[in-house]
Amino acid sequence: MFEKRVTKTNLSELGEFGLIDHLTNDIKIVNESSEIAVGDDCAVIDSKGRKVLVTTDLLIENVHFDLSYTPLKHLGYKAIAINLSDVASMMGKPEQVTVSIAMSSKFTVEAIEEIYKGMKLCCNRYGVDIVGGDTTTSTSGLMISVTAMGYAENNDYVLRSGAGRGDLVCLTGNVGASYMGLLLLQREKEAWKANPNMQPDLEGNDYILERHLKPEPRLDIVALLKENGIKPTSMIDVSDGVASEILHIATRSGLGCALYEEKIPVDPATAIMCENFGMNPITAAMNGGEDYELLFTIKQEDYPKIEALKQVAVIGHMTEKEAGVNIISHDNISVPVEAQGWDHLKKKD
Amino acid sequence: MFEKRVTKTNLSELGEFGLIDHLTNDIKIVNESSEIAVGDDCAVIDSKGRKVLVTTDLLIENVHFDLSYTPLKHLGYKAIAINLSDVASMMGKPEQVTVSIAMSSKFTVEAIEEIYKGMKLCCNRYGVDIVGGDTTTSTSGLMISVTAMGYAENNDYVLRSGAGRGDLVCLTGNVGASYMGLLLLQREKEAWKANPNMQPDLEGNDYILERHLKPEPRLDIVALLKENGIKPTSMIDVSDGVASEILHIATRSGLGCALYEEKIPVDPATAIMCENFGMNPITAAMNGGEDYELLFTIKQEDYPKIEALKQVAVIGHMTEKEAGVNIISHDNISVPVEAQGWDHLKKKD
Repeated sequence: MFEKRVTKTNLSELGEFGLIDHLTNDIKIVNESSEIAVGDDCAVIDSKGRKVLVTTDLLIENVHFDLSYTPLKHLGYKAIAINLSDVASMMGKPEQVTVSIAMSSKFTVEAIEEIYKGMKLCCNRYGVDIVGGDTTTSTSGLMISVTAMGYAENNDYVLRSGAGRGDLVCLTGNVGASYMGLLLLQREKEAWKANPNMQPDLEGNDYILERHLKPEPRLDIVALLKENGIKPTSMIDVSDGVASEILHIATRSGLGCALYEEKIPVDPATAIMCENFGMNPITAAMNGGEDYELLFTIKQEDYPKIEALKQVAVIGHMTEKEAGVNIISHDNISVPVEAQGWDHLKKKD
Repeated sequence: MFEKRVTKTNLSELGEFGLIDHLTNDIKIVNESSEIAVGDDCAVIDSKGRKVLVTTDLLIENVHFDLSYTPLKHLGYKAIAINLSDVASMMGKPEQVTVSIAMSSKFTVEAIEEIYKGMKLCCNRYGVDIVGGDTTTSTSGLMISVTAMGYAENNDYVLRSGAGRGDLVCLTGNVGASYMGLLLLQREKEAWKANPNMQPDLEGNDYILERHLKPEPRLDIVALLKENGIKPTSMIDVSDGVASEILHIATRSGLGCALYEEKIPVDPATAIMCENFGMNPITAAMNGGEDYELLFTIKQEDYPKIEALKQVAVIGHMTEKEAGVNIISHDNISVPVEAQGWDHLKKKD
């Protein structure tokens, strides 16, 4: 009782993925219904052939969001959207969420209503039911925990681990926009803190701001792929950046990968803001994160079907493991891909 | 942007149950699979006739637990146990949990390992798989969010709303012990703060301390009731105190209730600690909370079957709504039952 705990290993030494591996590598699954456990975007639970996909995310004030520039309604929307994105990345159909909110006494009922409004808006848009949750006080700040449940029939779901050698790597939409939106918000906040009479200069940047503040899960792509008879061999959503995600797919599938810088889709608005910040757009695209686009692999024979879809770009192909995961630059130089994404447990400088 | 939010209604005015009602009363369910949504211990999702029971709980440092007297392993155990208790209170079999932890940089890997050890211990004991989760940093303190999934065949699950007039009210084990354990821990903490050289006086109080620090979900009772062919008409677990829980059952079932003070089971160790604190044991029993016993109703015809079970006490019966919810004291005075449980959103004095 009342003892001092011996402190040894700092959390930042392992990072989020290292820590999860460390904590869960000795877990033995005992229930037949637990088909896929820790290690993918969702867990998969078998219920009489219907596969229940379960995913959960915890959002913490001043770690994952900053209320000085995040409208509460957008925050609620995003809290749901990022969980639905995890279901989308398994090719599932989300149907239920549970929602837990902890908030300090500085928050009013009206503030929580705003969060719920955003949550309901996102749920309505994607046909998802809020079926439960928990509300409680916190000693400081706001925390939101959402668990989403989605469904797939039989073996229609897609894991990170199924990519084959020679498979084509595909990416939806464009990447890097969310990160540039975040950088812009952070810059204007700093300027505003220095001079509170100044008006934030956000004009004309709606696209990148919306990509950051109100991302959409790409459930339209899930439907589109199904309509076109394309079953990806592996899939993940871009929450931590393309670099981090392609490493997950490559590692889980036991392969290497070659991506082509020129093929990575970047929106002009993102490129302009990169220019503004003196940043190479490929950095935002590869390491920015929070785009919630889908990164997936398909068999080469599906290329004609994919080529017809304007929402999807083919950005590379899977190689043998020994070649590593590389990005081929505009001037044809091969650079190893390293994860520098949103690993909240690793210290940033 | 950067605007000040208009503050109006203080959270404490509504309380947790009021707030949840307020936020969720306009939710319309769109998926056929969402069988029961907000308002019971678990949501119920239909998956080809198999009912998926989903429940979630958020535990916040210094709101739900105090690390100065809560061993981390016990905390992990309890975080799982209280969710399994929600599944038990629907007569379900828990099979999966997802686990999210946010912690500040003061926590080490070894500290998180201790929490996980406790979680795994509870999961192993009850045959439950950890299938997913999330770990992240927090700006201050420790937060744990657990979502549990359980199962029931067809309509074998039990809601709060099914009690009938004349049904017998049953309670497992005994109540009030957890609360007295908490009061003892708080008292010794205060004494220790006043004089850090003092040894905490916890000797001989193992039972009430364990009831508070390491509660068990009554999955044994679920099995026992099934073995004996007893299907409760309504059920809830005692997390906020018997008073709060019986009010939930009565309200949801549209009935009143008469409980008998002399029938409420209190352990001698609890009674002694009440004496020590100059408190009436019935107060701890009715309003203490965190006992995680099961409170349920059965049809009168099942009385002979229940009478044979030493783990269960019959403590009252359901009446017409107009009679209200009352407790009949030792000296035969009827007192209205009021919820004074663990409503974390209402200010305590």
